[in-house]
Parts: sequence; structure tokens; C-alpha cells
Amino acid sequence: MRAAVFEKPGSISIVDRPDPRIENPTDAVVKVVLSCVCGSDLWYYRGDSEFEPGPIGHEFIGIVEDAGREVNSIAKGDLVIAPFAYSDGTCPHCLHGVQTACLNGGFFPLGNGDGGQGEAVRVPLADGTLVKVPGTGYSDEMMASLLSLSDVMGTGHHAAMCARVKAGDVVAVIGDGAVGLSGVLAASRLGAERIFALSGNPDRQKLAREFGATDIVEGRGDEATEAVMELTGGIGVDATLECVGTGQSMETAISIARPLSMIGYVGVPHGVEFPVEAMFYKNRGVLGGAAPVRAYIPELLEDALEGKINPGRVFDFRTDLGGIAEAYAAMDERRAIKSLVEVAEL
Amino acid sequence: MRAAVFEKPGSISIVDRPDPRIENPTDAVVKVVLSCVCGSDLWYYRGDSEFEPGPIGHEFIGIVEDAGREVNSIAKGDLVIAPFAYSDGTCPHCLHGVQTACLNGGFFPLGNGDGGQGEAVRVPLADGTLVKVPGTGYSDEMMASLLSLSDVMGTGHHAAMCARVKAGDVVAVIGDGAVGLSGVLAASRLGAERIFALSGNPDRQKLAREFGATDIVEGRGDEATEAVMELTGGIGVDATLECVGTGQSMETAISIARPLSMIGYVGVPHGVEFPVEAMFYKNRGVLGGAAPVRAYIPELLEDALEGKINPGRVFDFRTDLGGIAEAYAAMDERRAIKSLVEVAEL
Repeated sequence: MRAAVFEKPGSISIVDRPDPRIENPTDAVVKVVLSCVCGSDLWYYRGDSEFEPGPIGHEFIGIVEDAGREVNSIAKGDLVIAPFAYSDGTCPHCLHGVQTACLNGGFFPLGNGDGGQGEAVRVPLADGTLVKVPGTGYSDEMMASLLSLSDVMGTGHHAAMCARVKAGDVVAVIGDGAVGLSGVLAASRLGAERIFALSGNPDRQKLAREFGATDIVEGRGDEATEAVMELTGGIGVDATLECVGTGQSMETAISIARPLSMIGYVGVPHGVEFPVEAMFYKNRGVLGGAAPVRAYIPELLEDALEGKINPGRVFDFRTDLGGIAEAYAAMDERRAIKSLVEVAEL
Repeated sequence: MRAAVFEKPGSISIVDRPDPRIENPTDAVVKVVLSCVCGSDLWYYRGDSEFEPGPIGHEFIGIVEDAGREVNSIAKGDLVIAPFAYSDGTCPHCLHGVQTACLNGGFFPLGNGDGGQGEAVRVPLADGTLVKVPGTGYSDEMMASLLSLSDVMGTGHHAAMCARVKAGDVVAVIGDGAVGLSGVLAASRLGAERIFALSGNPDRQKLAREFGATDIVEGRGDEATEAVMELTGGIGVDATLECVGTGQSMETAISIARPLSMIGYVGVPHGVEFPVEAMFYKNRGVLGGAAPVRAYIPELLEDALEGKINPGRVFDFRTDLGGIAEAYAAMDERRAIKSLVEVAEL
């Protein structure tokens, strides 16, 4: 099969790799239909974090091609969503709703095996990991929304859950990447009354508004803090979603959080430090991490299928597997919010 | 009137000070009946934090002696509990339940005025601040419990609330000082099923058990972490109360928190650093700060008056105002969990 591999910073190519096969009775093999590039992929693409050369990608939907003899919940021919982490669904952490801490789980790409940016993937612990999509004949638009549930929409939702967004809240979302925009949509879905999207980019501002942002805050750092404090009459926001992962974005997040409120953060931290005093003396809390996307798929899928949310709108660049290098470059250069990769016809 | 003053580290004495008087129409003057020494008083007593020489103390109950013309909810002769922060009760932060961030509030001791460790205190914003205790003729035991609601019990409860303790939870409480022990009681009151009290002191272990601890974990640092992880089958606890405020105690707290759980922390941080990676990669959150004790007094008072909780048990040293220096020394040397100061007859 053909699959994308990371060679060195700035260099992604397509190579031939062995077709995945069932190795354990709990495995499934999924033929990838749609894949995409994650903001976190850019860290190694840019050389900002260490990464082993080899297969890449962790977001995909596809068709089950084969299933091990102990797999019961899905079968050959099913359209499935794969969250970016695999999990057994039965350990205490999975039962607690945090499948990204599964005692037997792990993350795509598999250690020395498949990533999501390729023609097929061996999926361990298929029963716990994969979610079957009911029905058939979905539009490209709906397929893009289903793909978004493999990571970005669930991650934005996790930020909102960690920030404890509830109906009527005033919410700020820091980061206008695909995760931040998904966070806007998640906050809106949870009933937030006002949503401030921090963005200086007109295209992203537009999508933020479509997703439910009521106010756009341009500028960064102190300027953003001042703007949000003014918008809230000096009080700060009820819930803050930090969807970038840099020191400056976390600083901004903490500076606008009202006392006894939470900052939900989901950007992989790079240079983040938590200011203990600014947190303690204002009772500002933080919670976040790798999103247990698997836990959220069922409810988000239901809303997506009913057309209540359209999270696939974050994809504004489309290519095929052969165009994967350009899919990375477009995001790296911020020409694209998020790149979708059409791997195969359904 | 007589009042305790801080002179320099290790030196507390009693001096004559002007009798407090109504200065603003929202003030009340409270004649102190019981006062006490806080763990946070030890920071300046030990020279570990800067503190202006002058009046001290921030926990007291007493009788209203005079009330300004705009004070409506309390009147001369009422027995009242004063939380350690005064607040108007009407600003957005107060209405949000975080009176320690009141836009017009502040903390005892008053800037250049009274502390709680003296014969009387001018209380600003009396309507928002003071809570009237119904009834009369309370036992010494009940009076001690009422006093505990001015800070320590509410602070332990805040740790439990920030840690989101709920019925059935497995909880760990780090710190066997009066706040930690109050945290044990608060967790038990909220329905925790198992409570691990981290303590190496037999007297404190005994009180922890009386307050609801089901297991005692001796040892500190890695040893404590290992013990808690063993007790939880490697999973960690559902909720963690960090009631010390040092770097080591926070490290332990974070190491035993199960993924997607919260650490509630209330010890004034000294040398605390939050380990971003250990938090992010396990979805462990932190929330805490100066407890909005005022918000919690009504429900805790009800339970105390009904005898459901007996938080005054944390006081194991009694003296009068003349013995205040010894009250500090006993806590400093860990001869006492918490020192109660009998200032006047009821």
C-alpha cells in the first residue's frame, strides 16, 4: 500500500509499505477513505519537536476490510471513525471516560506500523476503538464532518468540557486554528451565550462567526487581555479555551479567566508555564490534555448526522494522498486552516 | 482595647490599641469572643514571608457591638461569624460565589486597622460579610465549631469543592494540619467512600480517622505516591486535596491524581511549580486559591448546628489573649494542630 512518511523537517513523501494484516485477534484492518493533517503534525514538520522518521497521521475514517476473531462490535464493510488513540474501552481509565490514558492503549501512528495518512491501517483493540457510522451514502460535506470527529472536533469539545462551559456562559477561545474553531463550535453547542474568538485572520474570523462566535478579538497578548476585560466589564470570562499551547497563549488565557473559572487547554504545550500566583490569588484553574475523543464521538456523531453541527467546515484545503506534502505546506504557511486528504473513493 | 501585634519573626505581643468605631455606614464593630491562629500566620511568624508589623489575625466570632446606619442584616447583640475576607455580597464576583475576589472587599487584618486576634474588630461591609448564628447558649464545643467556619473548615471544604469530590469517590488529602483535617471532614461530608489521609503524626491520624479517613498513608514524596498508587490498584485517586502549599506536596498531589481528575489546592503556595507535562499527558487539573469561605458558611453552619459535623475538633490548644504568643509557638513547634484563643466571655 501507499502511505505518507516523515523523512525530516519539511519533508513528507509517499512510499510503498506492507499491507497491514490482522496481528492480534482484537485487531481490525481499516481501508482509509479520508485522512487529514493535524496542527500537532506541524510540530515535527517544522522541526520543533523530535519525531522518528516513518509513517505519520492519526486522523482517519474508512471501511473495515478485515476484523480479528475477537472483534464483535464492527464487521467487514462498516464505515468507521477512528479516534487518534486506540483503547480497550474496558480498563478503569476508559470506563472513567479518559480513553487516552487506556492501560492497554496507545496512539496512532502505531510504533513501527501504520499511520492514518496511508491507504490502510491496522487498528488495535478495534472493539474499544472504532465507532461504526450508521447508514450510507453520505455527502462529501458530511464525510468531512465525520472525519473531524476523529480528532479536531473532539479536541475542541474537550477544551470546552475542561473549561466547564455551560448554558449562558461568556466564553473566550484562544487560537483560531482548526481546534480553536472547533472549540467555538463546541462552546456554542453547549449553550454559551457569548463567545469571543481571538483571531486576526479574516477567513478564520468568518468561520468562527459561522460556528457561533459573537465577538471577534483581534490582537494578542496584553492587547487581547485588555479587549476581553473591556468586553466583560472588567470581570473576565466564565470559561476559557486555550487551543494553541504556547507560553503567550496560556498567559493570555489565565489573564482573562474570571475568579473561580477554568481554563480548558488542549494544545500540546510548548514553552507553557503556569503562573502559580496569578492562578492562586484569583482561583483560576486549568485542566486539559490529550482529548479522550473516543468518549465524545457518540454524542457528536449524533449531532453531526442530524445536521446540528457541521464541524467539517474546518477543512478548507483538499488533496489526494499524492498531494500530502502540499497538504502540510498549506497548513504550515497558514494558507489552509486544515487539510483534508482524499485517500480512496468510498 | 487589647490586641495582638506582630513585631518581628517569632515575636507576638499584646498592646493597647484604639477601640474600633464605625467609620462607614456599612461597618459593624464586633466584640471578639473567640479567635484563633491560622497555619498561614506561621509564614510570617517564621519569617518565611514579608509582613508589616502590626495587628494580626483573621479568624473570629463575636457579638455585634455597634452597626452603621446602612447595616440591615445584623444588629447589636447578634452572635456572628466573620469570614477571613470581607465582601459586599453584591458585586459580580460575590454573586458568582467567590467573595475573596470581591471588587470592594479585602482581607483581615484591615490595612492599618484591626486584626481578628484582639478584643474588637471594625468589620467593613457588614451586611455582605457577617453571618448571624441563630439561637444562644452554645457549648464550648459548638462555639469552637462555629469559629472554625471563619476559615479552616471553609478552606478545607473549598479544597474538596475544587477537587470536585462527589459521592463514592476515592479521595486523598495531603497535609495533616488543621486545613487538611478539615479537608478530610469536608470530603467525608460530600460522600467520599474512601479517604486517604497522608500523615505521619499519631494524634493527627486519630483525628483524621474521626473525621472520616479510611486509610492513613505515612511517609512523604515518592513513598507516599507509591503507597497511594498501590492502594488504588495503580489507578490513582478520583480527587486530591493539596492542603500544604509546598513544592513537594504539590508534586505528590499531581503524581497520585488519576487521569481527568482535579487537584484542589488551598495552601498559600511557597515554592510550588506546576509540572506542565505531568499534568497535560494525564489530563490532571488544578484549581484553588483563597477560599470563598463566606459562600460556604450557610450550609456548613446548618450541618454544624445539627451536629452532623464537628469541625471545632481541630482545636487542641486553648489559651486566652494574654497567651497568644504561646498559641503561635505551640503551632510552630507542631505541639498543637490549631490554637484557639478565648478573648472574652460570651
